Amino acid sequence: MFTGLSAFPLAPLHEEKLDEKSLVGLVERLAQAKVDSIGALGSTGNYAYFSRGDRRRITELSVQHADSIPVFVSIGDTRLQQVLRLAEDAQQVGVRALMLAPVSYQPLYPDEVYDLYETVTRHISVPLVIYDNPRTTRFEFSVELMQSIAALPHVSSIKLGGMTQDMMAMRARIAHLKQGLPSHVSVGVSGDGVAIEGLYAGCELWYSALAGLLPQLSLRILQAVRNNDHAQLSDLSARMQPVWDCFARFGGGLRTVATLAVLLGRVRSSVLPAPLRLLPVLEQDLLRQWLLDMQELAA
Amino acid sequence: MFTGLSAFPLAPLHEEKLDEKSLVGLVERLAQAKVDSIGALGSTGNYAYFSRGDRRRITELSVQHADSIPVFVSIGDTRLQQVLRLAEDAQQVGVRALMLAPVSYQPLYPDEVYDLYETVTRHISVPLVIYDNPRTTRFEFSVELMQSIAALPHVSSIKLGGMTQDMMAMRARIAHLKQGLPSHVSVGVSGDGVAIEGLYAGCELWYSALAGLLPQLSLRILQAVRNNDHAQLSDLSARMQPVWDCFARFGGGLRTVATLAVLLGRVRSSVLPAPLRLLPVLEQDLLRQWLLDMQELAA
Repeated sequence: MFTGLSAFPLAPLHEEKLDEKSLVGLVERLAQAKVDSIGALGSTGNYAYFSRGDRRRITELSVQHADSIPVFVSIGDTRLQQVLRLAEDAQQVGVRALMLAPVSYQPLYPDEVYDLYETVTRHISVPLVIYDNPRTTRFEFSVELMQSIAALPHVSSIKLGGMTQDMMAMRARIAHLKQGLPSHVSVGVSGDGVAIEGLYAGCELWYSALAGLLPQLSLRILQAVRNNDHAQLSDLSARMQPVWDCFARFGGGLRTVATLAVLLGRVRSSVLPAPLRLLPVLEQDLLRQWLLDMQELAA
Repeated sequence: MFTGLSAFPLAPLHEEKLDEKSLVGLVERLAQAKVDSIGALGSTGNYAYFSRGDRRRITELSVQHADSIPVFVSIGDTRLQQVLRLAEDAQQVGVRALMLAPVSYQPLYPDEVYDLYETVTRHISVPLVIYDNPRTTRFEFSVELMQSIAALPHVSSIKLGGMTQDMMAMRARIAHLKQGLPSHVSVGVSGDGVAIEGLYAGCELWYSALAGLLPQLSLRILQAVRNNDHAQLSDLSARMQPVWDCFARFGGGLRTVATLAVLLGRVRSSVLPAPLRLLPVLEQDLLRQWLLDMQELAA
């Protein structure tokens, strides 16, 4: 299941309550687009903002409406005890894999992080994705720690974050990482703005926030990489730039994708949990124009 | 109430469950030592690791056993909605103030942080402490944002974090901050290793993790500052250095204070929520020796 395009939909709210209807709409679109997997509760799905009950419900609805596409969810929490409960809930509801970032309030040390993964892998029966997101967790995995964790049972993929557009650095990091990685563990690029670079640098799949809303557009980018179609990639990159700029300026994909979803009428305007906000009016106007320009692509 | 020494006790666990007996013991010692206030659920009290029910219970026990010493608690959470519920719970249980840090999973923007405080101050009836802790929240307050928030109703104090031992920088920051601060808003130093410097640089009180466990020692340091007793301060600083080194090397006071509490037999060894750990064995030996050397002071 960890190949191609993995799409991360929003878990939309309406006035601070889960908006089930909009969630189902987003998931059904992903099923129709035939993405390779659905990360129902990633950072874009605001997993760290929901109660255990809501997380179970979001997982359940996603599995029910994903057709046969494999669904996985993040089980991150500040407490290991709660991580284990979330893992249990998600497996009961039928996820095909789990994803775990070293979520913390107190910054964690490498030994604590290894323990966390080691304990979790002893308690689960489905594949696990190592979720590397230093922007939200403030934890920087060393290559060696990632390789140690990747050798634990059930670990099947790494969602690699914290990457820049420096192709040389990205290539070196991925090559170094893969040297000590079991061959069954795939590496996926995360951070949509560097996806093309990440795929060229050796990532086997794309973990995408954009794909959670605009799967056709993400699939087209992925196809262009596969076809090694430089002309199309150059064109797509240029057209995507205003969106990647918003990603970079507003702390990753969440606020930008949520704003696009509101503009497209796919979610209500109170989609994000307070105090998180949509993009400012100026950027909303810019994205409205971008959607018009992209009409044939951003279906 | 925001003067002198504000002590932050641990909220001890035993095998992942709240250890009420140890908690009460810690709070009663603070009452006996007559600290000026008790921050029952600070970062040292692991507020971000407890359920709403546990946070209410810890608050309740602390108020009940604090004698007449004012108790306040942190109400931080990733969701504003939950912050408001925690504020309501704490006020019902009899806290004399609340404390709020801009807790987040997604890094927050200044406008979002201002909104958070503005909304909270419209819903509370007790004083509020602005809790600045960039190490755990990753949010860096600008002086201007802090001043804007300090002008909101109910704001009474700032727990200032992120300070280094650079006295010039600390003095400049505090002087700049105070210029635009309402006169009823006090500024307290946080980060025990820089407390003496912070008090000399103009802070009116000391928000202390160490004092949550060793209030007499903290009171002696504070008294030496008040008496401007440089000989004693120099002696105390030298003797405290091994502990401040542990604070600096192991991510703030929590793990060090928890280790000291275990060594003193005041809490059980499973005091911290997994995956957080006590200090490594080498540092435990060092702290055991330190406690022997400090016997008359670390009562």
